[in-house]
Amino acid sequence: MQIELITIGDELLLGFTVDTNAAFIARALAELGVEIVHRSTVGDEAPRIAAAVAEAIERTGAVITTGGLGPTADDMTRPAIATLFGRELVRDERVVAQIESRFRRLGTGAMPQSNIVQAMVPAGARVLENLHGTAPGLWIDDAQGRWVVMLPGVPREMRGMMTDTILPMLRELIGDATTAVVSRTIRTTGIGESALAERLGDLARGLNGMPLAFLPGWEGVDLRLTSRGMSPADAAVELESAAQTLRDVAGPVVYGEQADDLASLVLAMCRERGKSIATAESCTGGMLGARITRIPGSSDVYRGGIIAYANEVKIAQLHVGEATLAEHGAVSEQVSCEMADGARRALGTSIGIAITGIAGPGGGSAEKPVGTVWLAVSGIGETRGLGRVYVGDREEIRLRATQASLDLVRRSVGAL
Amino acid sequence: MQIELITIGDELLLGFTVDTNAAFIARALAELGVEIVHRSTVGDEAPRIAAAVAEAIERTGAVITTGGLGPTADDMTRPAIATLFGRELVRDERVVAQIESRFRRLGTGAMPQSNIVQAMVPAGARVLENLHGTAPGLWIDDAQGRWVVMLPGVPREMRGMMTDTILPMLRELIGDATTAVVSRTIRTTGIGESALAERLGDLARGLNGMPLAFLPGWEGVDLRLTSRGMSPADAAVELESAAQTLRDVAGPVVYGEQADDLASLVLAMCRERGKSIATAESCTGGMLGARITRIPGSSDVYRGGIIAYANEVKIAQLHVGEATLAEHGAVSEQVSCEMADGARRALGTSIGIAITGIAGPGGGSAEKPVGTVWLAVSGIGETRGLGRVYVGDREEIRLRATQASLDLVRRSVGAL
Repeated sequence: MQIELITIGDELLLGFTVDTNAAFIARALAELGVEIVHRSTVGDEAPRIAAAVAEAIERTGAVITTGGLGPTADDMTRPAIATLFGRELVRDERVVAQIESRFRRLGTGAMPQSNIVQAMVPAGARVLENLHGTAPGLWIDDAQGRWVVMLPGVPREMRGMMTDTILPMLRELIGDATTAVVSRTIRTTGIGESALAERLGDLARGLNGMPLAFLPGWEGVDLRLTSRGMSPADAAVELESAAQTLRDVAGPVVYGEQADDLASLVLAMCRERGKSIATAESCTGGMLGARITRIPGSSDVYRGGIIAYANEVKIAQLHVGEATLAEHGAVSEQVSCEMADGARRALGTSIGIAITGIAGPGGGSAEKPVGTVWLAVSGIGETRGLGRVYVGDREEIRLRATQASLDLVRRSVGAL
Repeated sequence: MQIELITIGDELLLGFTVDTNAAFIARALAELGVEIVHRSTVGDEAPRIAAAVAEAIERTGAVITTGGLGPTADDMTRPAIATLFGRELVRDERVVAQIESRFRRLGTGAMPQSNIVQAMVPAGARVLENLHGTAPGLWIDDAQGRWVVMLPGVPREMRGMMTDTILPMLRELIGDATTAVVSRTIRTTGIGESALAERLGDLARGLNGMPLAFLPGWEGVDLRLTSRGMSPADAAVELESAAQTLRDVAGPVVYGEQADDLASLVLAMCRERGKSIATAESCTGGMLGARITRIPGSSDVYRGGIIAYANEVKIAQLHVGEATLAEHGAVSEQVSCEMADGARRALGTSIGIAITGIAGPGGGSAEKPVGTVWLAVSGIGETRGLGRVYVGDREEIRLRATQASLDLVRRSVGAL
């Protein structure tokens, strides 16, 4: 089964609002084996809405819309789709009663007259109760069985209705999924997209009949396998076998799967081995600490850190040598190592992690361009630095440095 | 002028990635008076891409696509659109040279063979240089003057190319705008949406014939005025007058406009007055430092900080009294004040900022529920703490605490 999605609203089209509903609906439907094959966004104009719905019905016969069901004059979804289906809008007394009761229950006073329009329903359409807001959803179909479901655009209401009503309805309509779109993500870091593709060779074009997508980001390159047209059980088998092949061929650059977070993995590794962590950050200014402490329960491994943005703080708090700074500069292997050692000693932890670099836009030189970063891990064997030159803007360079420092811990601790 | 936007990628259609490019492009074009009238998203399949582009060209004759220009087998935009326009893909030696030079410049080794495909250009298309990545953009048009611009899907690259190349090209193509959709945002913090609406009274419904939107987020509540159908010059006058009214009525909760960042404003205030800053963070774990150092040039005000996640670090590095911790607990006004004083003294700055709180999900009690945060600023008059209880998840509580601590500095320094 294939469905088209149409998200409606000037705020989406004009870019004031990022369309998060579309991603939510796609993920929810994929789990039923239903595929979104096309998505459109149109503004609050009845002819544009009708045209987009007409095209989508022509292609798939199954359409979900979000938005344009509110009580104000710019909410045009109901009349546009009623007209397209050649139906009158008729007042539904049960919906009036539901909206009135909602206003009473919330203690927000009597229902404003403007809300009456939300009880105007295309003749023959089925009303889908909205337990999370005033705008009911609507299901309209034609003699050929082609249908449109209209959902509200408020994310909380849309999500509630998908879960309460739409997914169960669709599950009943299509039966148990015979085939599903299922994906599996293998996460890599410390290797570029092209180098990873070369390492994978022919596998880069896909495995076991499944395409492989390369998704580069600041965390690294994710490899996503997508199975289509298989039963969920077969897909699971094929995905696991393909994932195993990818893990074997890609090697130690693979750090996790699906939504695995490198900081969580590193915390778990350290927790298991009874290790504690302190951080020393220069160019990242606290990002590494912020990322680690984002994880609930991080306090049993992470003790804290020093943000040594100024050189005087590196000297006073981390005991970096003035001579080291003078001789090698703040962005150097030597300073990164002394920072990592200093953090570990100052905070009394088993591991110290340090980051120093030039995040730009200023501060670069021919010898040390913007993006030059030195990372070090102290407390696992000899303290050694890792030098990298990252591309990207200031924030991206900082994010990449943070990720790489965690990966250095993963590799060091993993080798114990 | 009307343009259609087509965003391409399985990850968008399947909901793995939220489409932020679409909003960026729409906002950028709106300022030229160019309206996006329809947006589509299709997956990485050549026939779907070609069909969507064909429909869009039919409607507006002007189309921007993002995505599908990468070096791997799932990148189908180039061949799909070349076929639609009846063109061969030909190797462009200048593009080969640019990509090779990029690889040399970044020191990431020789260009992998897979990148050659990015130099395959539809015959007659114009190559748009990408200074931010390897995939060049492409401009293709037909005998009737209808055109498609293909941009990479990586947000950083797309944004750079829009700014460097596409917006100047379009500005030249369409001349000065006669009417435009223009908006103006007034930023507030430290006040809730309902309280702000009450303070604004009738103005909450709009000013000077322009609607007013309330946009709550972790930074505070933004007020957005939108003008439509006016010339850019008239809109500027009306928006400035309305913004002035809003600033007057809302009062000191207004900290900035448009994309103003509170951390940047605080840095500028401190710089002007010759003040330096140190931070002491417990529950935010480095977020405040990370946010301050995100701003280029922050080093002339910000010296660094202590991430005192464990109580021992609060004692050893910040000289918080063991008795204070025992008597009041780590999340208390007293501890926040001692942390702020300690950071200022340890790092030798004029101002110390401290955050301590319970970000959850665990750690709350009846007396100090999850969301309880104490903030303090040291070095401007008497050190005093500010207590708040925030709602939201762990990350939201941490973000709100960071923003509130900066606002405390804004108000303290502003009163000097």
